[in-house]
Amino acid sequence: MDYQGILNVIEDKIQGEKLQGNVASYIPELAKIKPGKLGMHLTSVIGEEFHFGDSEERFSIQSISKVFSLTLALLKEKDEIIWERVDVEPSGDPFNSLVQLEYENGIPRNPLINSGALVICDILVSHLDNPKKEYLEFVRRIAGNATIDYNERVAASEKEEGFNNRAMINLMKGYGNIHNDVEEVLDFYFDTCSISMSCRELAQTFVMYANQGKLLKDQKRVLSEVHTKRINAIMQTCGFYDEAGEFSFRVGLPGKSGVGGGIVAVYPNMYSVAVWSPKLNEKGNSTAGMRALELLTEITGSSIF
Amino acid sequence: MDYQGILNVIEDKIQGEKLQGNVASYIPELAKIKPGKLGMHLTSVIGEEFHFGDSEERFSIQSISKVFSLTLALLKEKDEIIWERVDVEPSGDPFNSLVQLEYENGIPRNPLINSGALVICDILVSHLDNPKKEYLEFVRRIAGNATIDYNERVAASEKEEGFNNRAMINLMKGYGNIHNDVEEVLDFYFDTCSISMSCRELAQTFVMYANQGKLLKDQKRVLSEVHTKRINAIMQTCGFYDEAGEFSFRVGLPGKSGVGGGIVAVYPNMYSVAVWSPKLNEKGNSTAGMRALELLTEITGSSIF
Amino acid sequence: MDYQGILNVIEDKIQGEKLQGNVASYIPELAKIKPGKLGMHLTSVIGEEFHFGDSEERFSIQSISKVFSLTLALLKEKDEIIWERVDVEPSGDPFNSLVQLEYENGIPRNPLINSGALVICDILVSHLDNPKKEYLEFVRRIAGNATIDYNERVAASEKEEGFNNRAMINLMKGYGNIHNDVEEVLDFYFDTCSISMSCRELAQTFVMYANQGKLLKDQKRVLSEVHTKRINAIMQTCGFYDEAGEFSFRVGLPGKSGVGGGIVAVYPNMYSVAVWSPKLNEKGNSTAGMRALELLTEITGSSIF
Amino acid sequence: MDYQGILNVIEDKIQGEKLQGNVASYIPELAKIKPGKLGMHLTSVIGEEFHFGDSEERFSIQSISKVFSLTLALLKEKDEIIWERVDVEPSGDPFNSLVQLEYENGIPRNPLINSGALVICDILVSHLDNPKKEYLEFVRRIAGNATIDYNERVAASEKEEGFNNRAMINLMKGYGNIHNDVEEVLDFYFDTCSISMSCRELAQTFVMYANQGKLLKDQKRVLSEVHTKRINAIMQTCGFYDEAGEFSFRVGLPGKSGVGGGIVAVYPNMYSVAVWSPKLNEKGNSTAGMRALELLTEITGSSIF
Repeated sequence: MDYQGILNVIEDKIQGEKLQGNVASYIPELAKIKPGKLGMHLTSVIGEEFHFGDSEERFSIQSISKVFSLTLALLKEKDEIIWERVDVEPSGDPFNSLVQLEYENGIPRNPLINSGALVICDILVSHLDNPKKEYLEFVRRIAGNATIDYNERVAASEKEEGFNNRAMINLMKGYGNIHNDVEEVLDFYFDTCSISMSCRELAQTFVMYANQGKLLKDQKRVLSEVHTKRINAIMQTCGFYDEAGEFSFRVGLPGKSGVGGGIVAVYPNMYSVAVWSPKLNEKGNSTAGMRALELLTEITGSSIF
Repeated sequence: MDYQGILNVIEDKIQGEKLQGNVASYIPELAKIKPGKLGMHLTSVIGEEFHFGDSEERFSIQSISKVFSLTLALLKEKDEIIWERVDVEPSGDPFNSLVQLEYENGIPRNPLINSGALVICDILVSHLDNPKKEYLEFVRRIAGNATIDYNERVAASEKEEGFNNRAMINLMKGYGNIHNDVEEVLDFYFDTCSISMSCRELAQTFVMYANQGKLLKDQKRVLSEVHTKRINAIMQTCGFYDEAGEFSFRVGLPGKSGVGGGIVAVYPNMYSVAVWSPKLNEKGNSTAGMRALELLTEITGSSIF
Repeated sequence: MDYQGILNVIEDKIQGEKLQGNVASYIPELAKIKPGKLGMHLTSVIGEEFHFGDSEERFSIQSISKVFSLTLALLKEKDEIIWERVDVEPSGDPFNSLVQLEYENGIPRNPLINSGALVICDILVSHLDNPKKEYLEFVRRIAGNATIDYNERVAASEKEEGFNNRAMINLMKGYGNIHNDVEEVLDFYFDTCSISMSCRELAQTFVMYANQGKLLKDQKRVLSEVHTKRINAIMQTCGFYDEAGEFSFRVGLPGKSGVGGGIVAVYPNMYSVAVWSPKLNEKGNSTAGMRALELLTEITGSSIF
Repeated sequence: MDYQGILNVIEDKIQGEKLQGNVASYIPELAKIKPGKLGMHLTSVIGEEFHFGDSEERFSIQSISKVFSLTLALLKEKDEIIWERVDVEPSGDPFNSLVQLEYENGIPRNPLINSGALVICDILVSHLDNPKKEYLEFVRRIAGNATIDYNERVAASEKEEGFNNRAMINLMKGYGNIHNDVEEVLDFYFDTCSISMSCRELAQTFVMYANQGKLLKDQKRVLSEVHTKRINAIMQTCGFYDEAGEFSFRVGLPGKSGVGGGIVAVYPNMYSVAVWSPKLNEKGNSTAGMRALELLTEITGSSIF
């Protein structure tokens, strides 16, 4: 069975399983999404494209942007400086937990939880003249798509409500681990989370991580092989809040989820895949998204393990 | 460069780097080991063998045995019953932490930390007529080596000192997650940790996990493909106490360490590898062992990511 | 209104308020108690006695014994040695919490929580030839009552079930804060908790703490003034698990509760008072007991504050 | 020996003991204070005044203001509403800890730690037309002293540095336990902490809490007897961060400390006393201040216990 056949099977199964979950409601813009949306897109490293459902519809990528932020930071700052300010360990705690941050003196557990992404954004603010503009240019470049953009309403909505993130960044500022003005960093962070992309666009962007750091269209290198491996490793252990083990166990691929209901996963040297379904489980990950990716590695009989 | 050439380079580098660390000293039997020991053995899935140094000398495998315990439990008990009693998430805390266990009502974070391995041992005690005897037979079978044995002095030493494990198992008993007598389970657990094996023996045993669950000598299946994948996934996210992320980041292979200074790692469909050096870093993992495996995936330019 | 009049008012009010709660059920011997029991006894420092209800019926004093253990330890061991091994701070956590104990390296927060009382019992085991016999003699002496005794069935029941205490004592043994055999200390600890006394007997024993450390009958000093003040201070801040603040706020007297449903309180230079009602609130303190003492200081318009 | 004699003894002893500690340095305005300052003032409920040293020099009262804030809140808002939003339990954790706040869903442990005082300030902001003005008027009224004032430099300094308080208030806002704008509440909170008073002024103000809630000069009631008792009870269990038990144990009086080096204590129906020495122990309480009060109750042989 080819990938398209497998995706069709997945679509049928998911539609039949009537998976439960709740659309993220902490900001009004996310709560508006229709819960029944479902789309999936797979891009192989040899350029094939497979998809089903609402795979062309854009949604708020939210925490998936943390992978782009980390990638850009690795291009702008020395590794040893980054890894002094953020660790690479799984968090073992909910994504907005202040507890661990306090016990560990303001050093976030990893760059894919909110606190870690805030430090990464602080690093970007230090290195970019116009962070908001340059960040978008970077995402558009690796996506090969100049139409990708921020959703200003989503960003504004988050800025109004983001008390937990404001708590975390002030705590880290108290520990000296935020170098710029907290409101400037927060603003930039909320912008990065507000980017809208479709499953197709996400898969076509993340295929770089399956392609050893090179863009697919021209094989031009964006990221070194070592950096690519490390980002994949971090996605594997830290990409799903306190459900990273479960995802690794059930799916067996590096990946990253967002509360907008999107999940991307990477099979190095094989493919990238994005799935979208807005209903989340209690850990904040897309219920149908996790199931779809589990079916993918189950049916193909192939994962990194 | 073939694997033997690479192993020779690793040996040279490690010898030159004069890595620091402390031999585990919490029980006298472990404290006696000469700190300068260093050995490595790689077994490929096509049956090649490469090695250097003290790779034939047996040492106490300690927590590496947790992988064997989990494997045997998966053969004896239904998955759903096991995963109700032990989770599959990274622990994010030191290996002997009671904190997480208490917050999570006696359900250990994963089967590769002490608390989780105690629950797995409890499951084995429920299913085996003579746990100590049958466990050793199982390890000998997958190792293809009838001389492997417990070290009674090590086991006795642990039984005398194991107050933290005794604290944990009693806590879990209070939550109803230990079904047998705590002292019987503890005794069996300390026995499993006391097994002595060499790097060669470990690599030759763990190659089963790189070979989709089949023994290399006769391709007979011990473990299903799904179970093999899952054990590898759990080693990836949980095999190194609170340094699982660091190992994933630097090495990029599933693996498991023990306080005896041993580390095994698995590259699915490629090879298994074992390294031994008794000097541990502050997280309890072999300093030179981690470095040797980092060099291995760095020089080969190849990891699961 | 004299104290007897006030006690009568309290009895009426409590009977009318139909307070809720659950009898402790973690050991069968405690679960057997009739939930409707209610008794109160007040002994003034000038020897007056006032009471109502089931004030003559003995019940399991449980954690109230921790005050006797501390008192005897202060007579047997130097203060500085005791306070190096146990702190005097409120615990801010449930009474059986291992978390704080682990964060604080095996030093219990105070001598009136289980972990602290275990250390105190360890100290007594070190100093007494026959701890069980000498402890009972001491309690009988300060009670002026040779009929007070252990309840062997309660003690046996606790010994069978006490997994949390066994977890705690092993954790502390691991930190070097238990000097004797853990099972010997645990056995002695469970014995001390099993003592049966009535409200009358408790009030008549605790009046010593209201009487500056002297027995009422002959004004013979048992405890120095300084030690008496300190025990009262510790009861004030630590006597009610994580409800010490609430008791201080509502009642305003030093006191100690037990899961058998008993509470004693001390008004220095005025009176001691004991109340018994087996229905406990969710924090493990007698609902009607706390209410009765609140009414006592409310109606008398007089507390230490 | 009368109180003046006792105070003279205390002064001599303290001068001889050469107690160590560090002046609070987290804001420049506090770091400037001369470490050798020492003053004490006792006001009895019959209007006698005793003092020594720098008892007339004003210093930053810091957290001592939390008692005034709570007092004013109890006059402005219903008890049940206040105690739904703030608990009355000792915190058992450092004064700026976010951990407990997160575990307890944004409900501070008590009104005398920073998080609790922020909620109390939020309540005051809701009830006062001009919080800053009306708060100062209230303090001046109970102090009987129209010259008491904010120190604008101290307040400005705190506003610039207060990242931990900003983290906490945002966390509580996320839980819905702050009703007003966080910056407005923070500004007001920092103002309250910046009030400057001398030992004499503090003792003369706090004598109200020793006088059942009535001003000494005219016996006019400010606070009900019940509220007075409860504030004293809360000071007893919660007035010294995670050293409340130690203070209760050594001194045996309700009290409150501030990082400016001041401590006030109250002996109900007897006296109020204030002491000032800027060198703090590692828990943030004045070393000499605690010692002076310990000597006071030791020499008088009289405390609430």
